[in-house]
Amino acid sequence: MHTHHFQPTHYHTTIGSHEPVLHISPGDTVITTAVDAAGCDATGNQVTPPGNPQTGPFFVEGAEPGDVLVFRIEALRPTRVAGFSATVLAENVVDPDAVRTLPEPQGSSWQIDFDAGAVQLARPRTRLGHLTLPLAPMLGCFGVAPPRGQAISTATSGAYGGNMDYRGLGQGVTVYFPVFVPGALLHLGDAHAVQGDGEIVGTGVEVSCEVRFTVDLIKGRAPSWPRGENSEYIFTLGNARPLDQALQHATTEMTRWLVDEYGLDLRAASILLGQGVRYEVGNVYDPAYTIVCKVPKKVLAQIPVV
Amino acid sequence: MHTHHFQPTHYHTTIGSHEPVLHISPGDTVITTAVDAAGCDATGNQVTPPGNPQTGPFFVEGAEPGDVLVFRIEALRPTRVAGFSATVLAENVVDPDAVRTLPEPQGSSWQIDFDAGAVQLARPRTRLGHLTLPLAPMLGCFGVAPPRGQAISTATSGAYGGNMDYRGLGQGVTVYFPVFVPGALLHLGDAHAVQGDGEIVGTGVEVSCEVRFTVDLIKGRAPSWPRGENSEYIFTLGNARPLDQALQHATTEMTRWLVDEYGLDLRAASILLGQGVRYEVGNVYDPAYTIVCKVPKKVLAQIPVV
Amino acid sequence: MHTHHFQPTHYHTTIGSHEPVLHISPGDTVITTAVDAAGCDATGNQVTPPGNPQTGPFFVEGAEPGDVLVFRIEALRPTRVAGFSATVLAENVVDPDAVRTLPEPQGSSWQIDFDAGAVQLARPRTRLGHLTLPLAPMLGCFGVAPPRGQAISTATSGAYGGNMDYRGLGQGVTVYFPVFVPGALLHLGDAHAVQGDGEIVGTGVEVSCEVRFTVDLIKGRAPSWPRGENSEYIFTLGNARPLDQALQHATTEMTRWLVDEYGLDLRAASILLGQGVRYEVGNVYDPAYTIVCKVPKKVLAQIPVV
Amino acid sequence: MHTHHFQPTHYHTTIGSHEPVLHISPGDTVITTAVDAAGCDATGNQVTPPGNPQTGPFFVEGAEPGDVLVFRIEALRPTRVAGFSATVLAENVVDPDAVRTLPEPQGSSWQIDFDAGAVQLARPRTRLGHLTLPLAPMLGCFGVAPPRGQAISTATSGAYGGNMDYRGLGQGVTVYFPVFVPGALLHLGDAHAVQGDGEIVGTGVEVSCEVRFTVDLIKGRAPSWPRGENSEYIFTLGNARPLDQALQHATTEMTRWLVDEYGLDLRAASILLGQGVRYEVGNVYDPAYTIVCKVPKKVLAQIPVV
Repeated sequence: MHTHHFQPTHYHTTIGSHEPVLHISPGDTVITTAVDAAGCDATGNQVTPPGNPQTGPFFVEGAEPGDVLVFRIEALRPTRVAGFSATVLAENVVDPDAVRTLPEPQGSSWQIDFDAGAVQLARPRTRLGHLTLPLAPMLGCFGVAPPRGQAISTATSGAYGGNMDYRGLGQGVTVYFPVFVPGALLHLGDAHAVQGDGEIVGTGVEVSCEVRFTVDLIKGRAPSWPRGENSEYIFTLGNARPLDQALQHATTEMTRWLVDEYGLDLRAASILLGQGVRYEVGNVYDPAYTIVCKVPKKVLAQIPVV
Repeated sequence: MHTHHFQPTHYHTTIGSHEPVLHISPGDTVITTAVDAAGCDATGNQVTPPGNPQTGPFFVEGAEPGDVLVFRIEALRPTRVAGFSATVLAENVVDPDAVRTLPEPQGSSWQIDFDAGAVQLARPRTRLGHLTLPLAPMLGCFGVAPPRGQAISTATSGAYGGNMDYRGLGQGVTVYFPVFVPGALLHLGDAHAVQGDGEIVGTGVEVSCEVRFTVDLIKGRAPSWPRGENSEYIFTLGNARPLDQALQHATTEMTRWLVDEYGLDLRAASILLGQGVRYEVGNVYDPAYTIVCKVPKKVLAQIPVV
Repeated sequence: MHTHHFQPTHYHTTIGSHEPVLHISPGDTVITTAVDAAGCDATGNQVTPPGNPQTGPFFVEGAEPGDVLVFRIEALRPTRVAGFSATVLAENVVDPDAVRTLPEPQGSSWQIDFDAGAVQLARPRTRLGHLTLPLAPMLGCFGVAPPRGQAISTATSGAYGGNMDYRGLGQGVTVYFPVFVPGALLHLGDAHAVQGDGEIVGTGVEVSCEVRFTVDLIKGRAPSWPRGENSEYIFTLGNARPLDQALQHATTEMTRWLVDEYGLDLRAASILLGQGVRYEVGNVYDPAYTIVCKVPKKVLAQIPVV
Repeated sequence: MHTHHFQPTHYHTTIGSHEPVLHISPGDTVITTAVDAAGCDATGNQVTPPGNPQTGPFFVEGAEPGDVLVFRIEALRPTRVAGFSATVLAENVVDPDAVRTLPEPQGSSWQIDFDAGAVQLARPRTRLGHLTLPLAPMLGCFGVAPPRGQAISTATSGAYGGNMDYRGLGQGVTVYFPVFVPGALLHLGDAHAVQGDGEIVGTGVEVSCEVRFTVDLIKGRAPSWPRGENSEYIFTLGNARPLDQALQHATTEMTRWLVDEYGLDLRAASILLGQGVRYEVGNVYDPAYTIVCKVPKKVLAQIPVV
């Protein structure tokens, strides 16, 4: 169980079977950094082309197709105080006949106050003044190399993860990815200091970051879609367009989880989900949307251990 | 400001310009009852055909097309201890190729423990045992008469409300409906003792109920889609298929609210929503799905009063 | 087998259980007229409010819920030479980020040349000059009263027909509707002299019309969605949003037709459709879209008679 | 203007920036072969893993990002008489509650009669007997390397082409692709002897093939989505889920074509499309669906030459 300090020197704007930058073992911890979505580092200098540049990939020893890569975000912290964001709703999240009313694109800048745990709007000047939101860092884009030799743009997402842009993917969360290639090949980047549901302006408050994560491995039992958990919920992530299909993926994966790991039959899983499920909208902006299907651990605690 | 006690003698399975059962005035309170979705009353006897039978309509004096009907659920309480629910996920919320794995339809029964504030699964017998969820009564289907002389099935929903099946529509919530016909013609029914997001088995825990509500009127300024608020959030309700369109309706309505009532321009509204919006899935089962777009009042409090 | 001449004096902008204007018998022919979508008659005068006003309803003697109403358009002819149309693509048929480029709404006028069988653009003046298209009259909106006492806006459509806006529904076509109420209650209106697939500017070339139709009745065996046929194809009509769901309805209905009337099992129906099906886009503008699922009669002729 | 004979020795199941197998020049003709979707060649032997294996890529000299690759299918002919197909409708093209009624997967075999120009069902034995359809060979999957270094599964499609499975893409058709990488890197495979609209059983009648194609280059002016033409129509191809978005892509691309190449303004383009457009469903099975937006050349001929 080593702790690796890794400083990236190059980045990828696809998630694929790229040359690993580091070999790590199950149980290991990595402390590394990522540039922001525009390729800018902690000093604000652009060091690589934009488009959710990814740090990695990290090769996890022993990971084979069909395994589960356990990825836990132990700590996630912006590495600068200045964040940037878009300021116009995406055309696809408003009624088509309202698109004409949207203003022209323009940037906004935000300041992070680490002591206060807050993110504050610096400009433009609007009636919002210095709107202040709780600091809630998250990783927008991370995942493992997809199957079939594919290399897929960091604009989108799939069963391998990718640009899911779900605000729940921050410190303390554990994500379970299916492994498609030897070593799993973990990529990560695109931190946001804060983001609303859906990433409906097309960005969060974009920042460079330092991340401390651990990896582990579960042999076999790869899920069909990413799973995750935090202190309160277990959850699944469905990535697709339209939202209806993303929700189908996430819900189906949750039934598999309840059946395979909690010993429920599909009727019991249906009863539980019917009255107890929670959904969240990860993103409704990227080429693939993301829906999160959640079950409270408090409810699950009522199920006798298998 | 009278308090009316109204005991329904007949019900409607469309929302439309039916003969009013009671004339009430803005500011009035009504205490009434509704049968459950299957038409069963507090004694469990079926007293009217199934399909979300509606109590009402209530004619609100002075309500004219273009006005806003303010409907506040002051209290909502099941009138019996036995609730019923379906036990199989709707075919449209799982992956198409998983439909074949779903079990056959079968009912479940639940018992409400009012003292404990809980709803407990009575049968069928599964590994869930007597699964217990917090009692959280809500109204699945309510709204005002739609425009153009329409009478629309209580299976679906629209700008006039209807079968939105959003678990957030319970005690303490205020909903703002556009008025389409003189008197607004408020209908209500379809209580659930508890329901998960999306109503993904097609039902909540269905119960008859007693509801105490107040109405008020805001002249002119009818919204395009229902708006609402509770102690923590303002929210809008978009009803349509697919989810993508429901989300467009809800988001667009929220921008109108922020612009018209909070004095934001569309850029400020975009910034606020981009980093601060919350979405919920009302239902993803009925002919029209429901998405809820929410903004925390705590965030809105930062905007200077107009 | 009578021929009725019926001159409407009032119209409906919902399809519902309205007072019948005429009682007719299976086998009868009716010659009647309809105003255009804007409520204008053959002289161009507006005689009723706009919104696809319907002539009827016609009560078909003997029609009971569960029966099939056979509606055949024997002849359909505009009753004036001037037609009108919109000139801007609907916002929902272009990419969301292209909406801003669309021009402002403006009308166009067209002239029908009955001798030439052509429809010619009169204005506005564009590089299209006097664009001339083949005259191809169709009925945009027609159907039978929906179930459950509903009255549904003529803007939309469903299993009962309605505003399907499919250019294939012209002279020589036979449509088979499920009957939901005694007498079926047939409504019709909204003629177009010509229309592209999808009705993507929101209108065809709108005209008043004279229509000669016959009705017949098949006891029992109501389809779930409208079916139809012309000289070359049998077809089914699915009405819903999004297109994906409309296509599911139409395809499923076609499998039922092939199974119930042609004696195929579902595998044979799948094989036939997989390599032989044709789809058309009826409308992609109205609240419910319409997809048409077609099978060539030439292919069906290969199936031995049941 | 050379004619190259190229015999592939390996295949790709992604479309990407793979090592070119042949360098060709604008104006050149290539005669080559492709295995079927399952990787089987003209003798029926599987020579490469399944999944729409692609012949190529072909490097077109002079092609630079931003150019248009002109790809014309001069001749396309199955190289064996035996074709294979699935026999069950895809779960996603029927109503969700009809999925349970679908039969189990099973293959079918078909025989091509080149003299008769027909494709005949050999087995299974059903009421269809030896169902015979006109031979209509097409290429299901072909395109150019996508941007950003991506390598994308041949299961899906995008602006670069890919697995569009549109039955109109056969002999005599010309397709115009945007060029994303130097040399364009043309891939092709997945021939079908015949296919219905939508590829709704998930396959056409799958065959190995010989294809003769020519390439040409138009400098600059890359379209946003593939364009094409045959003797009767110009058309655009939109690839996305859901169908609604595919239709938006195709329609928007057609407006760009009409504006850029035919000198129409957007109002004139709208008028033309509103009354004259035709849509076809390419596929409604693959991860990205395909909609084709067509305009008859006969109609275009009325527009004065720019």
